[in-house]
Amino acid sequence: MLQLPSFSLLQARKSLSVLQTAAVSRAKGAPLVIEDIVVDPPKAYEIRMKVLCTSLCHTDITFWRGKEDFPLPPVFPRILGHEAYGVVESVGERVEGFAAGDTVVPTFLGQCDSCGGCASAGSNMCSALPFVVGPGMRRDGTTRFRDSQGEPLHDFLAVSSFSQYTVVDVNQVVKVDPAVPPKLACLLGCGAGTGVGAAWRLAKVQPGSSVVIFGLGAVGLSVAQGAKMCGAAKIIGVDLNPDKEELGKEKIRRDRFREPVKTRREPTQPVVLISLLDKVQVIIEMTGGGADYCFECIGAASVMTEAFRSAKQGNGKTVILGLEKDGKPISLPSIEFLFGKCVMGSLFGGMKPKTDIPILAEKCMNKELELEKLITHEVGLQEINTAFDLLLQGKSLRCIIWMDKLEV
Amino acid sequence: MLQLPSFSLLQARKSLSVLQTAAVSRAKGAPLVIEDIVVDPPKAYEIRMKVLCTSLCHTDITFWRGKEDFPLPPVFPRILGHEAYGVVESVGERVEGFAAGDTVVPTFLGQCDSCGGCASAGSNMCSALPFVVGPGMRRDGTTRFRDSQGEPLHDFLAVSSFSQYTVVDVNQVVKVDPAVPPKLACLLGCGAGTGVGAAWRLAKVQPGSSVVIFGLGAVGLSVAQGAKMCGAAKIIGVDLNPDKEELGKEKIRRDRFREPVKTRREPTQPVVLISLLDKVQVIIEMTGGGADYCFECIGAASVMTEAFRSAKQGNGKTVILGLEKDGKPISLPSIEFLFGKCVMGSLFGGMKPKTDIPILAEKCMNKELELEKLITHEVGLQEINTAFDLLLQGKSLRCIIWMDKLEV
Repeated sequence: MLQLPSFSLLQARKSLSVLQTAAVSRAKGAPLVIEDIVVDPPKAYEIRMKVLCTSLCHTDITFWRGKEDFPLPPVFPRILGHEAYGVVESVGERVEGFAAGDTVVPTFLGQCDSCGGCASAGSNMCSALPFVVGPGMRRDGTTRFRDSQGEPLHDFLAVSSFSQYTVVDVNQVVKVDPAVPPKLACLLGCGAGTGVGAAWRLAKVQPGSSVVIFGLGAVGLSVAQGAKMCGAAKIIGVDLNPDKEELGKEKIRRDRFREPVKTRREPTQPVVLISLLDKVQVIIEMTGGGADYCFECIGAASVMTEAFRSAKQGNGKTVILGLEKDGKPISLPSIEFLFGKCVMGSLFGGMKPKTDIPILAEKCMNKELELEKLITHEVGLQEINTAFDLLLQGKSLRCIIWMDKLEV
Repeated sequence: MLQLPSFSLLQARKSLSVLQTAAVSRAKGAPLVIEDIVVDPPKAYEIRMKVLCTSLCHTDITFWRGKEDFPLPPVFPRILGHEAYGVVESVGERVEGFAAGDTVVPTFLGQCDSCGGCASAGSNMCSALPFVVGPGMRRDGTTRFRDSQGEPLHDFLAVSSFSQYTVVDVNQVVKVDPAVPPKLACLLGCGAGTGVGAAWRLAKVQPGSSVVIFGLGAVGLSVAQGAKMCGAAKIIGVDLNPDKEELGKEKIRRDRFREPVKTRREPTQPVVLISLLDKVQVIIEMTGGGADYCFECIGAASVMTEAFRSAKQGNGKTVILGLEKDGKPISLPSIEFLFGKCVMGSLFGGMKPKTDIPILAEKCMNKELELEKLITHEVGLQEINTAFDLLLQGKSLRCIIWMDKLEV
């Protein structure tokens, strides 16, 4: 069972700022700095939570790196992190349905359950508190963080989980069963949730279908898990990094891998790997005319085009999950649309966070989903820069960062 | 009621070639030539039908014009035409379910009802006799037409309705109730079917939704009919040709038009017209954040991008119906996919011809669909080049060409 911190103490702090430790991103591409910071109490409709664990996602890297050609300007100093798990420490005014001690997953996407977006079966874009990259809390645009000199620290996606405590809007907090292992619940908050959701909620993968996944990072391998959960008959993975084959073999069961596609053998098991130049043609051959579903999990415009070309005529779906690295547009051969192809995308795999995270958490417990296999490394908050190095070098899928080593 | 030709005479001809009149396209962009031609008897799985009326579609124009930069090479001499209505004259061996005298609509898209494509709810691409632009009958690649010198004449889409008689595969013939007016049934075979189907079967327009249609030709105005049939609350039409405003007003009820959008008044009725440079911004304002459905019915890559940008975040659908005029790829801002947008397309509006044409034919009879309003002109076969001129000049929506003036 989960070890919870002492809530009698935490509850006493309810309306006070708390002095805590966080990993602060002070300059683009520079190592994060472990600092004592001040976390303000939650305002109305907000929750302050103790982060028990968090993990590192490529989106954190993108905003930390702050490349010149990225469409959004970098913002520093900032507390990154948006994939996490923790417990509610205190709640602000007008918060209903949450109390100190609740085990929760914060989410970058809100769900108010009363706007048109939330009411629509086909959308997960809440219009009451719309998604913005930020910085700033979405109701008032301000931050709840200050450094030891009293200078404000920007938040990230209104989550900022690289801090032992954080403040999140009530629309961006999902209660989960305390029996779910914290590190699995953590992954549901972004990477694994996005991948599984994309197969399950967005593409609605049908039993017996064929699925191709471009990019076998944590999101891509989560798409494979989601596709398997939906009953896909054939799952093909494509990655140019040969290390990913080993990582995949280690983390997903070995017997689900076969020879790389260059042998052109028909796979009898769900996952194979391809690293060929003519992969569109190979995929079309392997799937008897094109895949039912193609998922782009890299964020490269050229791969998005390849995914589209690999999809089946008639009703092949291409799903865009990656944020294009350089902000380039996608170029698609228009005539292929006339043959019944479709391209779609979404944030968070089309899932409504409050509705769907608890369902996936249950599937983690009954082993329908095996997200443990995505966790390649675990470190303490002090070693957070190691997590960055591992992901940058393509050596990790997900690295769990435990926040309480400094405190508990 | 429909006047049918004498079938005792026609049945006697069953296995003989017939000498008939057709409009032959002999050179690219040149006026069609009215000629006596020979139409061979139907082979196995084929039907020979007498064409009672046909109409001219932009796709005929595209192949007649044979522009250098079009991705498919022009083929001449050829009998164009693929939107038609007629009666079965004779059937070949192994044809089941059809007999001389049946009233039918030929279709460029086959439906065998036994392959995977036909069995799939989400696809209308028959894999048993796949769609090809041709020329050639789809089972053996040969033609059933010869000119008076005995030289072969190519077919078009395996339909070739600019001939008093034609031979069509049994998979490409749909039986319709003889009570349906011939010229309305004719339009269901391509343009009107594609437009209505795109709203109804492909996009599945929901009641109360907003729809924007780029291009108010026969297909675009049929999308409007389909969207209205599905209960759309707001239908906005976009066309740069000012004549289309008058045409639209004349053909769709006048009271459904309001001021062009340059006034930026909120329309209270379904259809308005826009011919502004900043149309994306205007549409986003008019629809309160983007349209639920955007239909591109022009075939211009730049307009496809505008349609995508005009769609709502969350679950806005963009539907590509036009064949890009110059074969250009579509360029789409990739980040907008992440906000839940989707782009789709299909041939024939995603309809399965044998399943859906009879349903739409019934809707024509009970006035749920008002396709009469698409017919701007009617001529005899001898005046077919007038139909070309009218469409090329943007003066017509659909011109019905009556085939029997020379014979009956």
